Amino acid sequence: MIRQKRTVFYLSDRTGITAETLGHSLLTQFDGMQWETVSVPFLDDAAKAATVRMQINQAAERDGYRPLVFSTLQNPQILAVIKQADCRVYDFFEAFTHPVEEELHRSSARKAGRSHGLHNNLSYFRRIAAINYVLAHDDGVNPNHFSEADIVLIGASRCGKTPTCLYLGLQYGIAAANYPLTPDDMHVQQLPQAVEHVKSKLFGLTLTPAQLHFIRQERYPNSQYASLAQCQQEIQWQESLFHRFDISYLDATRISIEEISAIILNRCGLKRRLYG
Amino acid sequence: MIRQKRTVFYLSDRTGITAETLGHSLLTQFDGMQWETVSVPFLDDAAKAATVRMQINQAAERDGYRPLVFSTLQNPQILAVIKQADCRVYDFFEAFTHPVEEELHRSSARKAGRSHGLHNNLSYFRRIAAINYVLAHDDGVNPNHFSEADIVLIGASRCGKTPTCLYLGLQYGIAAANYPLTPDDMHVQQLPQAVEHVKSKLFGLTLTPAQLHFIRQERYPNSQYASLAQCQQEIQWQESLFHRFDISYLDATRISIEEISAIILNRCGLKRRLYG
Repeated sequence: MIRQKRTVFYLSDRTGITAETLGHSLLTQFDGMQWETVSVPFLDDAAKAATVRMQINQAAERDGYRPLVFSTLQNPQILAVIKQADCRVYDFFEAFTHPVEEELHRSSARKAGRSHGLHNNLSYFRRIAAINYVLAHDDGVNPNHFSEADIVLIGASRCGKTPTCLYLGLQYGIAAANYPLTPDDMHVQQLPQAVEHVKSKLFGLTLTPAQLHFIRQERYPNSQYASLAQCQQEIQWQESLFHRFDISYLDATRISIEEISAIILNRCGLKRRLYG
Repeated sequence: MIRQKRTVFYLSDRTGITAETLGHSLLTQFDGMQWETVSVPFLDDAAKAATVRMQINQAAERDGYRPLVFSTLQNPQILAVIKQADCRVYDFFEAFTHPVEEELHRSSARKAGRSHGLHNNLSYFRRIAAINYVLAHDDGVNPNHFSEADIVLIGASRCGKTPTCLYLGLQYGIAAANYPLTPDDMHVQQLPQAVEHVKSKLFGLTLTPAQLHFIRQERYPNSQYASLAQCQQEIQWQESLFHRFDISYLDATRISIEEISAIILNRCGLKRRLYG
């Protein structure tokens, strides 16, 4: 079957993050399509709008279908220019602003750049502090300061601890540390001594042995470290540790960093601080 | 003036990222309000829905106003339970799914967990590679490998290079390195030798001297490093370097990491890879 190809434009006065999130959520619900996406952030003057109108018309001609346009444009003049193009516009603020105004009995400011702007210095410092904490407590570094962590991830090498900690710090302002479970410790059914004092903050990340093998192969092909047998042993050992010490854990096979992070916060009851 | 207080619920079958992003975008447009937000990700069974319905009703009673509910629930039965509560529901898929179906002449899969799911291993590896690249090339480490970077940020200490690089790697899969401009080099109007070979990839980050002073004070109060005079000198020197060597740069004072990243990608024409 030939997939229907459509060009998708994400238009925004500012970063485009909201428009992209909106469009991406919708488009992933449609199978058998081929999307070509064009992000146009900082679309804030009439001349740029006229250029985008032209690009939309060219895409319509090339594809044989009119493009889908996801917009969070706050400026009605710019939106009007875009609407002259051969496209279908889904404007997020148009859909929701009036219904929210109605409920609140207040008018929207209709100003660009509010959702991802910098709200205050306190929130900036808290976020930077969390990022610095993550960087200074990655991969078992400084475990004597783990008591200051909101959460401490544990698991074998390449189970996704570092990217998850970074995401937790950057996106939610969470002070996340991580500590590796290494084959050196496999001879005993004990938690590494360095993390015993933070047992209540521990959260395990695991994978299927096949997925861990696949990921390690990518980096160190045909090594002992990457072998399926080694991966099986490490996973079996760490999961038995998690059970024995009653540590919550998650099988992160085939789930994204966003999902892993959201699941961890949810399970641990950690408060999400929203920046993005 | 007393601010009207409203409780806001973000409800999702999965991570809640889309619901939070959309709701946050709308709410930041309303001034003079006080929001209490409750995120409920992974709302995927009827029992949980009944609990949330009760929480919504309690919030309505406490506040004296019905809560606003931003939803990306794909399951109509769960949404129906929520709608029985005393609240105003803004359901994102309800608003847009039908209009997109109409345009594509296809039905939406209406399945949960697609927007932040893991699409494929290739995309996973690319993202992890970008994160590893950022971590291995932070703060001037390994400049001999900067030729593999998509971009190299330069600027004085505490101008925001590290968080921006992490965000570029994690959110967009961009291999971002950074190199500090240090007072040791201030006696000459030359780029540091280590970054000369990647001049075309350089992008400068700067701040107002007052903001840099404020940020450094937070970390090292009343130090020479944090003094306003020192900050003025460093900023003046680096901006003159940027001009002299025709390096694009951005004043990051009072803009968020999200905005800094979006502006950099836009100015450098770097292709954004969307994960979140």
